[in-house]
Amino acid sequence: MTTETEQLNAIRERIDRIDEQIQDLVNARAAAAGEVAHIKQQSGDEVVYYRPEREAQVLRMVKERNKGPLDAEEMARLFREIMSACLALEYPLNIAFLGPEGTFTQAAALKHFGHSVTTTPLGSISDVFQEVEAGNCQYGVVPVENSTEGVISHTLDMFFSSPLQICGEVTLRIHHNLLSNAPSLKDIRKLYSHQQSLAQCRGWLDRHLPNVERIAVGSNAEAATIAREDPGAGAIASETAGEIYNLGVLAHNIEDEPGNTTRFLIIGQQEVPPSGEDKTSLLISTRNEAGGLHRLLEPLAQHGVSMTRIESRPSRRGMWDYVFFIDVDGHKDEPHVRQALADLEKQAGMYKVLGSYPKAVL
Amino acid sequence: MTTETEQLNAIRERIDRIDEQIQDLVNARAAAAGEVAHIKQQSGDEVVYYRPEREAQVLRMVKERNKGPLDAEEMARLFREIMSACLALEYPLNIAFLGPEGTFTQAAALKHFGHSVTTTPLGSISDVFQEVEAGNCQYGVVPVENSTEGVISHTLDMFFSSPLQICGEVTLRIHHNLLSNAPSLKDIRKLYSHQQSLAQCRGWLDRHLPNVERIAVGSNAEAATIAREDPGAGAIASETAGEIYNLGVLAHNIEDEPGNTTRFLIIGQQEVPPSGEDKTSLLISTRNEAGGLHRLLEPLAQHGVSMTRIESRPSRRGMWDYVFFIDVDGHKDEPHVRQALADLEKQAGMYKVLGSYPKAVL
Repeated sequence: MTTETEQLNAIRERIDRIDEQIQDLVNARAAAAGEVAHIKQQSGDEVVYYRPEREAQVLRMVKERNKGPLDAEEMARLFREIMSACLALEYPLNIAFLGPEGTFTQAAALKHFGHSVTTTPLGSISDVFQEVEAGNCQYGVVPVENSTEGVISHTLDMFFSSPLQICGEVTLRIHHNLLSNAPSLKDIRKLYSHQQSLAQCRGWLDRHLPNVERIAVGSNAEAATIAREDPGAGAIASETAGEIYNLGVLAHNIEDEPGNTTRFLIIGQQEVPPSGEDKTSLLISTRNEAGGLHRLLEPLAQHGVSMTRIESRPSRRGMWDYVFFIDVDGHKDEPHVRQALADLEKQAGMYKVLGSYPKAVL
Repeated sequence: MTTETEQLNAIRERIDRIDEQIQDLVNARAAAAGEVAHIKQQSGDEVVYYRPEREAQVLRMVKERNKGPLDAEEMARLFREIMSACLALEYPLNIAFLGPEGTFTQAAALKHFGHSVTTTPLGSISDVFQEVEAGNCQYGVVPVENSTEGVISHTLDMFFSSPLQICGEVTLRIHHNLLSNAPSLKDIRKLYSHQQSLAQCRGWLDRHLPNVERIAVGSNAEAATIAREDPGAGAIASETAGEIYNLGVLAHNIEDEPGNTTRFLIIGQQEVPPSGEDKTSLLISTRNEAGGLHRLLEPLAQHGVSMTRIESRPSRRGMWDYVFFIDVDGHKDEPHVRQALADLEKQAGMYKVLGSYPKAVL
C-alpha cells in the first residue's frame, strides 16, 4: 500500500513528463511555423505572416474536438497564446489601440492577438487609423459598438475615407459599477446613467437603492460628470470612468445579467480570405427616393444573406442623405454573398466593402 | 516537385496534428491535477490547492530544459497559463488587488496567477489585506516598491498588524511617458518629475528637450499635478497618471533603459514550503543602543545569509525607535537561514517573519 505522499509524487512525476512532451510539441510547432515563413519568403511575393482566417480555423478546430476536462473556451485561449508566441518568433506584431494602457481596447487587442504582441497606445481613433495606414503598426484595434452606449460613431466615420480593411472583430464583457463621491450607498439621493445601464442593473437597484430617483442621461460618461459635481449623486459606469472622473466605487459588477459587451474591430491593410464562418461589413447609401432603403436591401433577402446589424449615419454630402453601416453573414467571396453584393451595388448610391473577416471565436 | 501551396498545406497539416497532441496532453495534465486534488480531499486535512513552490519549480524546469526555437521566457509564460487553467478547474482562485481595473497591480496579479483567475479590484491596500484576512479572496496583490518612487510605505505598514504571510513576489516593467497639456514638445518650458525618472530618461531628454529646465519633485504624481495646472509644463509619469490628471501623452516609453520596475507582493494565509530558490522577508527593530543595527545584522553575515534589501520605517511605538524591513536570500526552513534568524531574533526588539516565498520566476 502506498502512502498519500507517494501517490502524489507519482502523479507529479507524471505531470512533469506530460509537461516535457507539451514543451517539445510547442517548440516543434514554432519550428514548423518557421518553415512556413521560410517557404513564403523564398516565393518572392510580399509575405503575409498573420493569417486571421487560419487562426480562426485553428481555434474553431480546438473548440470542436475538445473532450475536456478543460473547458473548450479555456483550451482555445491557451492555443491563442501558443499561436501568438509562435508568430512573434517569425514576425513581431505591433498593434495600435485606442489608449491609454489598461483600457478595454487594450484588453481586446490582447484577447485577439494573444500576449506575445507589442501594443502601442494612441490618443484618438483617427491616430490608430493613421499609424496603421502609415505602416508603423501592422494592425489597429478600435471600439465600434457597446451594448450600453450604442455605436462609437467616430470609428464608423473613419471608414468613409480610410483605405483600411476590417480584418477581424473581438467582443469583451464590460461590468457596471456604482460610482459616487457619497460616503456610502445610503447617502445617494439621485442616480444617473444611460437608460440601458439603468435597465441592466434594475434588479440590483431595486434591492439596494429602491427609493432613489433614477435619471437617464446620454452616456455613462455624462452620468459620471454629474456625479463628480454632486456628492449626493451616483452614476453607473465603468471603473475606468471612476478613475477618470475621480469618483469612488461604492459597488462593483452590479449588472443583473453578464450581457454587457463591447465590440471592437481589427483594422489592417490586408484582405482576409474566407475562414468558413465570416462576416462582411459594408458602407452604403440610398439614392434620394422613397422606399430607398427597403429596395436597397432586397438583394440580401433574395440571395439568402442575413443582415446582422444596420446603423444609419448622416452622410457628409447633403442634409437628407443617409449612409448605412451594414454587417451581413458570410464572406464576400462566397457565391451567394458575391451575387447579393453585386445586385446591391447596382442599387446603391455609395457602396464600399469595409472587409470580410472571421466571426469572433473567443 | 511540389508546389509552394502543397508544401505549405503539408506543414499546416503537420501543425494541426501537433495541435491535437498538445490538446490531448493539456487535457491529460488537467485530469492529473484533478487526481491530485481528489487524493488531497480524501485525506481529510485542509486542502491547499495552490502551491506557489511547486509552480515556481515547474516554471524553472520549463526554462532550464527549453531548447527553442521558442524563447524560455515565452515558454514559461505559456506554462503559467496552462497551470492557471488546470488549477481553475479544481479550485477557482479569486485574487484581490489594489484597483481600479487596468492598473499595473492587476497586470501583476495576472502575470503571477495566469489569466484563469478572477480578480477583484479594491480601493485601498488595507482593503486588500482585509478581504484576504476575511477569506473572501484567497490571495491579494499589493505594490511594495518601485524603482522610481521607492517603497510603498502603506504596504509595509500593514504588516505590523496583519497576520497574513507573503506567499510570492512579482516584478513588472513600467514605462515612462512625457505628459503635458502643451500642444507639442516645443511648447514645453519646464519639466517636472521624480529625480530617478529624470535620470532614467536623460538620454531622451538631451536629444528632444535639451534646453528645457528639469525640476525634481517628490513623485511622478506630484509632477503630473503641476503639469495639469501649467500648460507650459511637462511631467514624466505613467500613462495612467496622464488619464487621471487629464494630460496628453506627447511621447511614449522615453526611458533610456528598460529597467524601471515595480515589485508586488502576493499575500495569503499560507506558509509556503521551500522551492529551492527562495527569499525571506522580515520585520525587525533594534533596541535603543548605539550600533544597534550593525550588531543586529551580524548573524546574517556569520551564517552566510545575503541581505538583498533593507528599508527603515519609523515605528509606531516611540519617537526614535526604527523598524526595518529586510529581505534575505533563502527560505526560513533552510538550516543556515534558520540559525541566522534564531540568532537575529535574540538581538532584536521586535521580530516578525513576514514569509518565505519563491523568487519571481517570470
